[in-house]
Amino acid sequence: MAYDFAETFRDIIKTEGGKIVLCVLDGLGGIPSEKFGGKTELEFAKTPNLDKLAKISAKGLHIPVEFGVTPGSGPSHLAIFGYDPVKNIIKRGIMEALGIGIEPEADEIFARGNFAKCSVENGKIKVLDRRAGRISTEINEKICDTLNLQIKEIDGVRIKFYPVKEHRFCVSFKSNSISDEIGDTDPQKVGAYIRKPEIIGEKTEQKEKISTVAYELTLRVSEILKGNEYAQGILLRGFSKTPDIQSFEERWKLRSLAIASYPMYRGITKILGMSVAHLSEGTLKEQINVLKQNFDKYDFFYFHYKKTDSAGEDGNFEAKVKAIEEFDQHLEDIINIKPDVLAITGDHSTPSEMAGHSFHPVPLLIYSKSRIFQDGEGRFTERDCMKGVIGTIYATKILPLLLAFAGRLEKFGA
Amino acid sequence: MAYDFAETFRDIIKTEGGKIVLCVLDGLGGIPSEKFGGKTELEFAKTPNLDKLAKISAKGLHIPVEFGVTPGSGPSHLAIFGYDPVKNIIKRGIMEALGIGIEPEADEIFARGNFAKCSVENGKIKVLDRRAGRISTEINEKICDTLNLQIKEIDGVRIKFYPVKEHRFCVSFKSNSISDEIGDTDPQKVGAYIRKPEIIGEKTEQKEKISTVAYELTLRVSEILKGNEYAQGILLRGFSKTPDIQSFEERWKLRSLAIASYPMYRGITKILGMSVAHLSEGTLKEQINVLKQNFDKYDFFYFHYKKTDSAGEDGNFEAKVKAIEEFDQHLEDIINIKPDVLAITGDHSTPSEMAGHSFHPVPLLIYSKSRIFQDGEGRFTERDCMKGVIGTIYATKILPLLLAFAGRLEKFGA
Repeated sequence: MAYDFAETFRDIIKTEGGKIVLCVLDGLGGIPSEKFGGKTELEFAKTPNLDKLAKISAKGLHIPVEFGVTPGSGPSHLAIFGYDPVKNIIKRGIMEALGIGIEPEADEIFARGNFAKCSVENGKIKVLDRRAGRISTEINEKICDTLNLQIKEIDGVRIKFYPVKEHRFCVSFKSNSISDEIGDTDPQKVGAYIRKPEIIGEKTEQKEKISTVAYELTLRVSEILKGNEYAQGILLRGFSKTPDIQSFEERWKLRSLAIASYPMYRGITKILGMSVAHLSEGTLKEQINVLKQNFDKYDFFYFHYKKTDSAGEDGNFEAKVKAIEEFDQHLEDIINIKPDVLAITGDHSTPSEMAGHSFHPVPLLIYSKSRIFQDGEGRFTERDCMKGVIGTIYATKILPLLLAFAGRLEKFGA
Repeated sequence: MAYDFAETFRDIIKTEGGKIVLCVLDGLGGIPSEKFGGKTELEFAKTPNLDKLAKISAKGLHIPVEFGVTPGSGPSHLAIFGYDPVKNIIKRGIMEALGIGIEPEADEIFARGNFAKCSVENGKIKVLDRRAGRISTEINEKICDTLNLQIKEIDGVRIKFYPVKEHRFCVSFKSNSISDEIGDTDPQKVGAYIRKPEIIGEKTEQKEKISTVAYELTLRVSEILKGNEYAQGILLRGFSKTPDIQSFEERWKLRSLAIASYPMYRGITKILGMSVAHLSEGTLKEQINVLKQNFDKYDFFYFHYKKTDSAGEDGNFEAKVKAIEEFDQHLEDIINIKPDVLAITGDHSTPSEMAGHSFHPVPLLIYSKSRIFQDGEGRFTERDCMKGVIGTIYATKILPLLLAFAGRLEKFGA
């Protein structure tokens, strides 16, 4: 992106206009599967409601970050929300924290951690297995309990361990005199020694302190875990506090509600200052009810659906097809709420053929009550979207287009 | 645009090559209209000559400024002429002056004005109606006459009022010791007070002087109009002198002629240093004659047709169709002059469905005697242009493409 849209065109963004619903079907895009007749999940799925909507909408594809780049959920969501995903980075530590539902406090810094097999040599800790043989989540939880009991703080910095999955955990450092601009303790190599994190940029007391405390922590953990049969050390990466990103409302002049049940998406939208709806079940039905009940109170609704991505990650073509069909069955209930602009897309592609995120452009559909160039033909599939009127665009262009369709942009220049 | 083409590739732009005719059908693009069978104006129009040309041309769409951005005529024309429309701004005051056919003198600064209903409170002027109830143009003209009689200059700065339409006028300030880098006197809100314009950037004597003179002018006008039944004050916006923009010939090494009858387009091209043809009637026939007579003398011809935009602005689908058909009937006469490269496009879209400018991509057709990838199929319509070989491009890429087709660009690098 050559320049920042919201900055450059700030003066033409209005505070009034139509209501926008953006449905993100996580990992929506796919690639053809030979086993299923050379079709993608979207092509294989029976989607009568999406088919109908596609005819009266504008279609296209979006490139989340850049041609060839497979994005994580952080960058892809930032791009869809109209932020430069290269300049606005949500680092690993905070992403991991958000992913397990932690609500970051002020002055709290997170690091992503691995439990590892280690040995101590001359006071230095050598890495023997970076994942401790992928210990079970139960063992992980037990080790975290032990550490939380024995280490409350180091040098005035409060320490807390949170188990994640298998060998992965998250650790928080809280103090008003530390910075997150340091490197990792993790040497990334078996046989190498755990490091005191490097200072990034100019030296300051705050950076020196977090580096010293982080290294001290790895030494103390080693002592506590000496003789433990599963893991004898920890590797820390991606130290990060809550990033300082312009709020979505400030940026786009939209009062916004996030309707998402998964912690990571709730966390990202919270960082952007959106209101995040309370959900008890997290079903599509509940999400649609929340949308309906709050429709008068907000201008913009982010509606997140996770199942498409989970099925794709599992490499389960049929489950992804089913997830798409389930969304399709609920589509009319969303349409009946009568948003002025309704966009349906994914944050990135997760082809079940690849069982993971991919770099492929993502189908995009925009319906608008007015100002719309309807495609008139084609289904909501990767290949039909290629021929759509929107063309293939960068994800950062989606928000400006939604504002334009909603009548929220004034004329630029005389 | 990440970099400036003309600067970056200056060395490969040749002074020799084919002759280029660029026809701008103002506000050309449309969106489908249900009332007319879901067709756009271009789709509905009978255009046998454009159809024939489209088959042997390259087609595409252009985005005047940015996805979602509805451009005014200034930015959209600058983009088509290959200037970054965000960096090269033609401000309101000078645009208004050009629009009514004023030929700016050296050291002349223009502001766009509204006559307004006002009251005076403790020496400050309060805005009661920002458009003075949209007074008639006749009343406007009379007030301007009165003001021109009673105010000739303030503090050595020559002042002139020019009526525009309804409540809108244009005022010029001429002096070699003033600058245009100030804000507005217009508070933009009813109930607020008229302001002394803010200085933009660093303070200088020149900025201070224009700000003082502008505010003094509003006070004097208030005194003169005290008791006037229609308007008792003025609001001034967009102070601007003729902008310092690189000339088109210097930029693209093209001797250029503008064949346009409307003041604004004559004004913009004059600012860019193009020759501007004299026209007495402003008919297509006259414009084509001028093109023919001057064909040997120039390399590049800007041929402007206004009717498509006027009909679109009026929300008159059928009139826009007719305007397109009228152009089509004259197309052969243009083709018969045998330009090496003939481009037909709009500066922006003006869908009659929206009765105003819009952000939708604009159809683009490029015919070239050689070096061309002919589409071979499709008409010159929004939807067929989407499938064209050029694809969807930013408007700033059009000029470089025209140069390339005309053989006016050398190889870049060894």
